[in-house]
Amino acid sequence: MSKSENISLSVIKRLPRYYRFLGSLKKQGIVRISSRELSERMGLTASQIRQDFNCFGGFGQQGYGYIVEQLHEEIGKILGVGRRMKAVLIGAGNLGRAIATHMEFERNGFKLIGLFDRDEKVRKNTVGGMKVMSMDELDGFCRENKPDIAIICLPDSSVAAVTERLISLGVNGFWNYSHYDIHLNFPEAKVESVHLSDSLLVLGYNMKNCE
Amino acid sequence: MSKSENISLSVIKRLPRYYRFLGSLKKQGIVRISSRELSERMGLTASQIRQDFNCFGGFGQQGYGYIVEQLHEEIGKILGVGRRMKAVLIGAGNLGRAIATHMEFERNGFKLIGLFDRDEKVRKNTVGGMKVMSMDELDGFCRENKPDIAIICLPDSSVAAVTERLISLGVNGFWNYSHYDIHLNFPEAKVESVHLSDSLLVLGYNMKNCE
Repeated sequence: MSKSENISLSVIKRLPRYYRFLGSLKKQGIVRISSRELSERMGLTASQIRQDFNCFGGFGQQGYGYIVEQLHEEIGKILGVGRRMKAVLIGAGNLGRAIATHMEFERNGFKLIGLFDRDEKVRKNTVGGMKVMSMDELDGFCRENKPDIAIICLPDSSVAAVTERLISLGVNGFWNYSHYDIHLNFPEAKVESVHLSDSLLVLGYNMKNCE
Repeated sequence: MSKSENISLSVIKRLPRYYRFLGSLKKQGIVRISSRELSERMGLTASQIRQDFNCFGGFGQQGYGYIVEQLHEEIGKILGVGRRMKAVLIGAGNLGRAIATHMEFERNGFKLIGLFDRDEKVRKNTVGGMKVMSMDELDGFCRENKPDIAIICLPDSSVAAVTERLISLGVNGFWNYSHYDIHLNFPEAKVESVHLSDSLLVLGYNMKNCE
């Protein structure tokens, strides 16, 4: 498999879905799958799948299909699921607590090592067995533990200042649940944003226009 | 503004972001904005913005820019934010409860009218002032209240059966937080899926490949 460079964003965004799908095939005990069968199950075309995989040097042999476990592992490696990058979560309100307890971080290449909130009431309860630290403890914690990414579950108005502070502490990845556009204001940072309301609005649009 | 038909999915997916952005400009007291200025602030090209808006018959006059409040309202109408479609949430675990309390449904054109969970322990606590009903109450509730969409916060293995049941009860929109591909198995349903782990995996990939 060749080194992956200049892969288009849309291919990269499909990788997690391949990874998930192959994981579930593996669980079902399926050993080998043709690109045609994989494409039918995933609702993609076989040529799309072959093209995507060719970006990474291709997997499998023409006519023989893919070995599920091997392909799952290869894609996992590309995604870096074995790395355990360190994550801190900022803002342990309803959403932050749900992310902290619901997400399987370790299966996705991360390890949640610290939770922070400025609200004393929020800090009274542990979250998934972890205590919630105060924002005053953030700098010392980051210097000592060197987190790779921060999960931002803050109100939009607080995000700019906290992001700047985290970047100065060496954090340069952000999983952003706010509507603040981190990537526009801090172009050097790696950012993935989850805009839950955008998704809900798109559903509303589709409901309205497809009646 | 002409009726919107056959608009590409990528244009539709950008609408919520325009809507959000214009809402924040409005809040800042900005009355008028040129497509050049809007594009700079949003990190898009001016021609992209004009093209997107032309899909809906265009807004504003060449050289005069857009009137922020009017454009915000027009895009809101296209998205259907004033409609209050009825939503039920299935699965009131950590994630479900966070969605129920964190999301501003009414600002996004929806109204959350019922919560359901099969676990008696989960049903002991209200969520944002609403009681959580048992799955046995779902059929009667849907017949009486006719929800438009269901928010699916269930383990993957339960989704197929619940979706089938909801569709038979007249629900045909799904905001899907599970990894079960509703749209592949129920092609008649309108589905928007939020795959949180996909987003985290993409961040991991970008962290690894951009060091």
